[in-house]
Amino acid sequence: MNSGIKVFAPASISNLGCGFDTLGMALSGPGDEIIAKFCDKPGLHISKITGAKGRLPLDSNLNTAGKSALALLEYLGESKRGIDFEIHKKMPFGSGLGSSAASAVAGVMAVNELLRKPLEKKDLLPFALEGERLASGSLHADNVAPSLLGGVIFVRSHDPVDTHRLPCPPGLYISAVYPHVEILTKDARSVLRPDVPLSSMVKQAANLGAFVIGFYRMDLDLISRSMVDWVIEPQRAHLIPHFYEVQKAALEAGALGCTISGAGPTIFALCANSFIAENVAEQMQRIYRDYKVEHDLFLSPVNQDGAIKC
Amino acid sequence: MNSGIKVFAPASISNLGCGFDTLGMALSGPGDEIIAKFCDKPGLHISKITGAKGRLPLDSNLNTAGKSALALLEYLGESKRGIDFEIHKKMPFGSGLGSSAASAVAGVMAVNELLRKPLEKKDLLPFALEGERLASGSLHADNVAPSLLGGVIFVRSHDPVDTHRLPCPPGLYISAVYPHVEILTKDARSVLRPDVPLSSMVKQAANLGAFVIGFYRMDLDLISRSMVDWVIEPQRAHLIPHFYEVQKAALEAGALGCTISGAGPTIFALCANSFIAENVAEQMQRIYRDYKVEHDLFLSPVNQDGAIKC
Repeated sequence: MNSGIKVFAPASISNLGCGFDTLGMALSGPGDEIIAKFCDKPGLHISKITGAKGRLPLDSNLNTAGKSALALLEYLGESKRGIDFEIHKKMPFGSGLGSSAASAVAGVMAVNELLRKPLEKKDLLPFALEGERLASGSLHADNVAPSLLGGVIFVRSHDPVDTHRLPCPPGLYISAVYPHVEILTKDARSVLRPDVPLSSMVKQAANLGAFVIGFYRMDLDLISRSMVDWVIEPQRAHLIPHFYEVQKAALEAGALGCTISGAGPTIFALCANSFIAENVAEQMQRIYRDYKVEHDLFLSPVNQDGAIKC
Repeated sequence: MNSGIKVFAPASISNLGCGFDTLGMALSGPGDEIIAKFCDKPGLHISKITGAKGRLPLDSNLNTAGKSALALLEYLGESKRGIDFEIHKKMPFGSGLGSSAASAVAGVMAVNELLRKPLEKKDLLPFALEGERLASGSLHADNVAPSLLGGVIFVRSHDPVDTHRLPCPPGLYISAVYPHVEILTKDARSVLRPDVPLSSMVKQAANLGAFVIGFYRMDLDLISRSMVDWVIEPQRAHLIPHFYEVQKAALEAGALGCTISGAGPTIFALCANSFIAENVAEQMQRIYRDYKVEHDLFLSPVNQDGAIKC
């Protein structure tokens, strides 16, 4: 047995404009790191958490990474094994970048790598979802699946899990700007009306299907036309400082699309290449600098690997 | 100049379960036939209509085929040209098989062929839509596009028209049973609630995206899982005699999916091959025979050619 391993699970962007609860995309960073090693005391122990400002519990059953790891250990018949986790949270909470999904994925990756890969990576998904369920209260694969597997993931169904990785046009780059306001997913859900006009459903669904076609055809114009959110964005935009100004700046600077990342407040822009993404980032940040809104920038290609052993 | 031509525009199935106003598929038959020839009297004249039981007007401006033909003639600067149409309606009205779309497509095909193809077939679409608008009151491409172009067509937007042909798994076969009750599209629309629960929108859109993935991947299981209509079918099923019994019989006989064709009352089943489609047809018809419901059966592959010069 190896004595200790380190894993990294990346942040991710869900919804992608037209794919509420259906689309997700992995970033290369930020993300969660876990250092796992065997220890003499039976059971899973979280000995240290950094970067969480005391907000994450050390109790494995209450911790998202712990919960997903325990679900996997139980499945593998390894519940009695003594394992120690050090969790290094290297990304913000409540940012719309899939923080809890990254934790849940890092937990199962750490266990699987420490035990020298009893399962294929794709088969870790149901256990990571258990961790995400602890954080969000329901099964959601649209951040967990891309954080684990990488790429752009289409989720047909969460229960049973039915996910599909889309082919990805080369060079796609993401510019994500996180203004320092916290939005909890459950609050962002509570602003949504329970019903959608039928005509909006048709336009939203048509854009989602066309987005998929755009990825299969590598048709950036079609992807761009399809990244329009008729349903969710109009209901959540007011939660995010100066959303429409930032979006306008990104689109004018050449982004294929720009909308809310997950439940927000991060605003992300999908761009044809890194050069455009840098220009887009500059224009998005300019708005926040003018309004003196504290923010972070994350520039990233589509992460094709997902979670990794470091 | 040639002295006369004959064209055929096929019936089509729209919605396909998960793609309300978004998906359509061409059949090899039934359909509309037009015989067009030049005549001395300037303008477009409909000299004869068969198969319509007197329900279609001879006035070109009020006739769906006439209207689309006139729109094309005007665009081509050929409005003064003397042209005669004989229209042979070889399919039922109000059946949910795109009868008005077939008429509209036949009209533009007849003009284009008679004039020896001044336009490419795909460029006839906007003019055919003008004919369809006369019949339905709005722009709808989900029957017109497949009738004209063939195959399985995804419509992202009707205005402006943004359609995409999906790759098609080989061998797909359709069994369509038309019970002899007439449902007008506008009546079938009036039963639909103006709003959709958000959770249903997510499931419906996810199925539509997955249906597209299924066609790109040639994954019949995924196509089958995706052909579930959470929104429209439950609201329209009661308009169609014994709908759920026929659907159940089709699925038990091995159909990939079975739902309402367009606005109904035709019920169609998508099948992996012609052998299964024949068995499925037999089981669907059995229900209607038991209940003594008059009906017609249409068995067809996916028509890859669309409208043709005969």
